[in-house]
Amino acid sequence: MKAAVLFEPNTPLQVVECELDPPKANEVRVKMKAAGVCQSDWHIMNGDWPSPLPIVPGHEAAGEILECGPGVTTVKPGDHVIFSFRPHCGRCRYCTMGRTVLCIGHASAPAGTLYDGTLRLKHKGQGISQMARIGTFAEEVVVPEEMVVPIRRDMPWPQAALVGCCVATGVGAVTRHAKIEAGSSVLVIGCGGVGLNAIQGAMLSGARLIVAADILDNKLEMARTFGATHTINTAKDNDPVKKVKEIADGLGVDYAFDAVSNDKTQALAFDALAPGGHAVAVGISAATVKAQYSPFAMVLTEKTVSGTYYGSVRPNVDFPVLVDHYMNRRLNIDGLISRTYKLEDINEGFKRMMAGEVARGVVVFD
Amino acid sequence: MKAAVLFEPNTPLQVVECELDPPKANEVRVKMKAAGVCQSDWHIMNGDWPSPLPIVPGHEAAGEILECGPGVTTVKPGDHVIFSFRPHCGRCRYCTMGRTVLCIGHASAPAGTLYDGTLRLKHKGQGISQMARIGTFAEEVVVPEEMVVPIRRDMPWPQAALVGCCVATGVGAVTRHAKIEAGSSVLVIGCGGVGLNAIQGAMLSGARLIVAADILDNKLEMARTFGATHTINTAKDNDPVKKVKEIADGLGVDYAFDAVSNDKTQALAFDALAPGGHAVAVGISAATVKAQYSPFAMVLTEKTVSGTYYGSVRPNVDFPVLVDHYMNRRLNIDGLISRTYKLEDINEGFKRMMAGEVARGVVVFD
Repeated sequence: MKAAVLFEPNTPLQVVECELDPPKANEVRVKMKAAGVCQSDWHIMNGDWPSPLPIVPGHEAAGEILECGPGVTTVKPGDHVIFSFRPHCGRCRYCTMGRTVLCIGHASAPAGTLYDGTLRLKHKGQGISQMARIGTFAEEVVVPEEMVVPIRRDMPWPQAALVGCCVATGVGAVTRHAKIEAGSSVLVIGCGGVGLNAIQGAMLSGARLIVAADILDNKLEMARTFGATHTINTAKDNDPVKKVKEIADGLGVDYAFDAVSNDKTQALAFDALAPGGHAVAVGISAATVKAQYSPFAMVLTEKTVSGTYYGSVRPNVDFPVLVDHYMNRRLNIDGLISRTYKLEDINEGFKRMMAGEVARGVVVFD
Repeated sequence: MKAAVLFEPNTPLQVVECELDPPKANEVRVKMKAAGVCQSDWHIMNGDWPSPLPIVPGHEAAGEILECGPGVTTVKPGDHVIFSFRPHCGRCRYCTMGRTVLCIGHASAPAGTLYDGTLRLKHKGQGISQMARIGTFAEEVVVPEEMVVPIRRDMPWPQAALVGCCVATGVGAVTRHAKIEAGSSVLVIGCGGVGLNAIQGAMLSGARLIVAADILDNKLEMARTFGATHTINTAKDNDPVKKVKEIADGLGVDYAFDAVSNDKTQALAFDALAPGGHAVAVGISAATVKAQYSPFAMVLTEKTVSGTYYGSVRPNVDFPVLVDHYMNRRLNIDGLISRTYKLEDINEGFKRMMAGEVARGVVVFD
């Protein structure tokens, strides 16, 4: 079987032949069907997020169960599944309070391995780590049972793949984390895969104003097709905060969702809020980024800033709901997919993403 | 009548004879009975918070209604009242969503004046502003009716005064803003008037762990008498975050309340949180202070940072409840009062406060 491996930071992925050990207890082997090309993979590839190397990136995917290890009860061979990139032990304090994305049940397992601390994937005898314990740019993977969610069989593969990261993260940030009220005014910063889905989440939730901000006009055009009522090109507008306030009652927006989460976008999110508003960091920036705020302003205007990881979804509950939304035409996932690639052409996918291609490339497997 | 006036930043208050015009429509004249000496007054006096001068500081007080202007319906002469330092028009978007501290109903009135933009207080013919439109370091004041809350007559005056700022702000931050669950673990940073009341708010709410942090041992001793289960002297402990985590399940606290809100204390509040935790800025720092956070950490650990102004209380509803709590011995206000002063000695009160005196001085009027 083939996998796209990162051997050194800032080098292209190498598609190489690998060996895959069979699943152990509570693990499953999955045949990959589709895997999205996401900015988070890029953070691994360029060293923003320190990771054990060599590693297979990729974390947004769907596939078919081939084989189950002992003890597996929630899926069987032939099931269609979407990968979840967060563990879900079901018993820790976070799982039992409904915040499964914060699961600490496997906190002692090293990064990039299966939960027992070992690797299933090897290249010429050398162990290869899996991004987020899944590493989906591979024809087959062995992952913990917890990290696959079974879905209906009529869901197309590339669309299913995107549910596993950008759809869940963007829609969930609005519907699961912030739980905005119908009639809210919303700013979404960054109109890539996550931001477009935050816009869709705001649409689903009955927002009355959805202001999209980006530095690229083609992304803002796309944002309108996903439901944005207003757009701001922050590379061209010299006072985007003023613009947002003009649009939103002179006061600012009730909610701001930042799909980028660097210092500048976090400041925009905070400043564009109306008093009492809530800014949500959704995108995962480099670990070194520091954002600033004024505690004085935060107190006097009672603003809130929070972070949502993976849209605060509970994958086993929320993925099937998101799939139903797509099948019922309440979510647009087709429009998120710009083109498909073969695994061999994966570096081309990253190149286009970094060049600002609108929407998302998806690697499809035969 | 006499009032303590700030004529220039960073000079002592001058107690001078003033003239007071009678109340206009929807205004009341109040005989001051007691007024607390608070750090917020100091921020006005040293220029941290730019204000129109000359000005009478003071915003935490209680008194008796002497005279009502036309249209006043909620109080009558002889009523005992606590001052609220926030307007409450009752009709704006914030008042009608229950967030009266964000009231924008009088946003167009200049700072320090009555709502019609004029002043009632004069010294030798020169108009004198009132801090927060009240300015309570004066024998008598004229204020908008909205800014007084009638209370039961058996409440002692100095204790009533403190309900109007430090009790409301500290208790409200926990009970009204964060709405912590019984069984929560809590960190309180800064054990002055507001911090001690945050500790009391955590006690009232059934917190299981209350960690108090300050730079002065005498304040930490006081914190224990108000309910702190653990204390940390952050001037002596070289890793307070580690200490908090050791105390709180190895993970950190569920809630952190920062009664100081400078860059260092905000960082401590954020870092000492368990994943999923909520840090609340309660104290009002200088307008120039900037605090930092890592969006990366905020997303991956789903932390929340928010600001609460005035404990997010609704004074007309919450002050009488806090007074009842005191009268029923559920809140300790006696222990918050370190000593009383005559108006003539008010500068001594600020001197002792800045020297780190435990608890609060109160100016009492005959």
